[in-house]
Amino acid sequence: MNAFVYDIPTKVYFGENQLKNLGAELSKFGKKVLLTYGGGSIKKIGLYDKIIEEINKAGLELYELSGIDPNPRVSSVNAGADICKKENIDVLLAVGGGSVIDCTKYIGAAAYYDGDAWDILLKKVPVKKCLPIITVLTLSATGSEMDAGGVISNPETNDKIGLIFPVMQPKVSFLDPTLTYTVNKFHTACGAADILSHIFEVYFSMDQDLYMLDCVMEGLMKTVLKYTPVALAEPENYEARANLMWASSWAINGFINGGKRQAWSCHPMEHELSAFYDITHGLGLAILTPRWMEYTLNENTVSKFYQFGVNVFSIDESLPQMEVAKQSIDLLKEFFFETLGLQSTLTEIGINDANFNIMARKAATLGSTKYAFQPLAAEDIEKIFRMCL
Amino acid sequence: MNAFVYDIPTKVYFGENQLKNLGAELSKFGKKVLLTYGGGSIKKIGLYDKIIEEINKAGLELYELSGIDPNPRVSSVNAGADICKKENIDVLLAVGGGSVIDCTKYIGAAAYYDGDAWDILLKKVPVKKCLPIITVLTLSATGSEMDAGGVISNPETNDKIGLIFPVMQPKVSFLDPTLTYTVNKFHTACGAADILSHIFEVYFSMDQDLYMLDCVMEGLMKTVLKYTPVALAEPENYEARANLMWASSWAINGFINGGKRQAWSCHPMEHELSAFYDITHGLGLAILTPRWMEYTLNENTVSKFYQFGVNVFSIDESLPQMEVAKQSIDLLKEFFFETLGLQSTLTEIGINDANFNIMARKAATLGSTKYAFQPLAAEDIEKIFRMCL
Repeated sequence: MNAFVYDIPTKVYFGENQLKNLGAELSKFGKKVLLTYGGGSIKKIGLYDKIIEEINKAGLELYELSGIDPNPRVSSVNAGADICKKENIDVLLAVGGGSVIDCTKYIGAAAYYDGDAWDILLKKVPVKKCLPIITVLTLSATGSEMDAGGVISNPETNDKIGLIFPVMQPKVSFLDPTLTYTVNKFHTACGAADILSHIFEVYFSMDQDLYMLDCVMEGLMKTVLKYTPVALAEPENYEARANLMWASSWAINGFINGGKRQAWSCHPMEHELSAFYDITHGLGLAILTPRWMEYTLNENTVSKFYQFGVNVFSIDESLPQMEVAKQSIDLLKEFFFETLGLQSTLTEIGINDANFNIMARKAATLGSTKYAFQPLAAEDIEKIFRMCL
Repeated sequence: MNAFVYDIPTKVYFGENQLKNLGAELSKFGKKVLLTYGGGSIKKIGLYDKIIEEINKAGLELYELSGIDPNPRVSSVNAGADICKKENIDVLLAVGGGSVIDCTKYIGAAAYYDGDAWDILLKKVPVKKCLPIITVLTLSATGSEMDAGGVISNPETNDKIGLIFPVMQPKVSFLDPTLTYTVNKFHTACGAADILSHIFEVYFSMDQDLYMLDCVMEGLMKTVLKYTPVALAEPENYEARANLMWASSWAINGFINGGKRQAWSCHPMEHELSAFYDITHGLGLAILTPRWMEYTLNENTVSKFYQFGVNVFSIDESLPQMEVAKQSIDLLKEFFFETLGLQSTLTEIGINDANFNIMARKAATLGSTKYAFQPLAAEDIEKIFRMCL
């Protein structure tokens, strides 16, 4: 068991009608607010108006950057950083899902750098400062609202890179489950796959750390399995949306990691899919994950899958370990592809093997496979991509 | 489901050999450090010397307050506050278990008040400021290392009062499981009872909040049930001590509460036992809790006990609810009084019914029974005390 530092200083306002605290929280950091958001869905649901009202009430000065894409581009980061420098922005207000929040984190960092923000992703410059960030979350998925990481795409080079800098941790996040009522079935399902994948990336490890954290992870997984179907059937079910929203934060804020020095497996592979084909991150994860599990299941790893099957899917513990393991993967497939209704193969979403070789080589380099559940070389990753066809 | 604010800014260094960061963390707050501790066990285990070494290395100025008792007295709070005022202390360093940390929290608050610190406990003065507090934990029990609460006794009036002030939240806590290797069987067992009780006080509620948090609580309970016997049998089992230590923090740092407006039941009753008889808090909780459960189990509450029995003790879910509920209470008794070897009645520890009436009336006033799992009037509490004879 390894030592670790736990430090999650983000303050969270959870529940309905918490935006009344937004003005006071923003004001702690200054007067000039840069509001960042995506394609305008926040206007459709009336959230934009509410936020403007709170900003006006607090007497703050508003600047805006809209049009941040899913799989956010480095061009948006540069555009945001330019506004920050030109207008001397004091605080960033990211309103949206993980893409908007991730992009805003790098805007906050790039505001202190005079070159192209992509240099930050390439680790050419250190990130020691970041403008304070407040978020209003509208999608339960990435957990970006409560962690210090973010992923940015560069379409010019087909690159998608994720890094973590503690200074990018949001100061305050507003989590109102009712803001996710309008999230459609597809994105609700993709969000669930993303949450589960964040937990899998830590849970599937032969490096035994704290039993307590395994219990917590199993509880988070059961929460997603229980409530995603409810949210799909009843989009305005508060209980379901609330459980998914809080689970999304805790799946990746660092708590469940404890002292594990765990390298991630499916995320680096999926980042290549999204970088090359701009697909929704959670969909890519849902297609990849069961194949990755099948590929990594063996005599050395079976005990972890057995634990997963018994504790998360309540499979009969008296069955042979390998049988429980296989059943657990089948049940996960059933959940992703039947219960959530996600497409089950890359072929179905129009992806063929044309780029598998280069994608696999990039995934094996960018995503560190050292300390992984099962170390994966480029040829392993390519095989897993093929299993997804 | 209620709204809530999540805000747990304490940074935690978990694991062995983390004290090398102590000097740097203390230095963030100034030069003058008041070290607070109890009866000297930290000298026996060599911890005192290590701490002095780190303080000297960082070039800090050391002041000391020792002799803080279990069930810490308001006299220690006043003594500490006097040192802070006289010496212009910058930062408090509490080294010990919950008693030392609780006491230090009120020292930090009383440093800004010119009267008797008991006025703070009587809520005669508001607490808006507190000196920064860093803790080094030596006992897994109260969770005081990661929350903003503390309990102080006043032997002159037989009062024991617990309050919460956000400004008293420790800035940094060092959690090294090896520092609990020397905790004897009795205090290890009492600590486990305290951790479990913190979870019970939130878990046993008919106010359904987030399912996810119930899962987390069940995971924490299973952790304590699994690892306390290991720690008793092998006091230097790192895995056991680490799981108990991290569980102790998460049982009461506020995370598991979510939006529940849950009043506590057993703690107010136990505080009267400790106030009148100065017994170890966890022992009082172990004796009281199963009787409180028996008293509150009825047709309205049985579903919660059923959930507890099935999910925590793995009792056969096909059995009738009431049977599962009763079995779960019996299994908890078995855990406290056989597995942990704690005394099972008040009679055994020399407490008779002489003060039950006054204690019950005080518990019903001081501990708010509004929002409780089952509201308890003074006569109910007296009956529960009698069940413990």
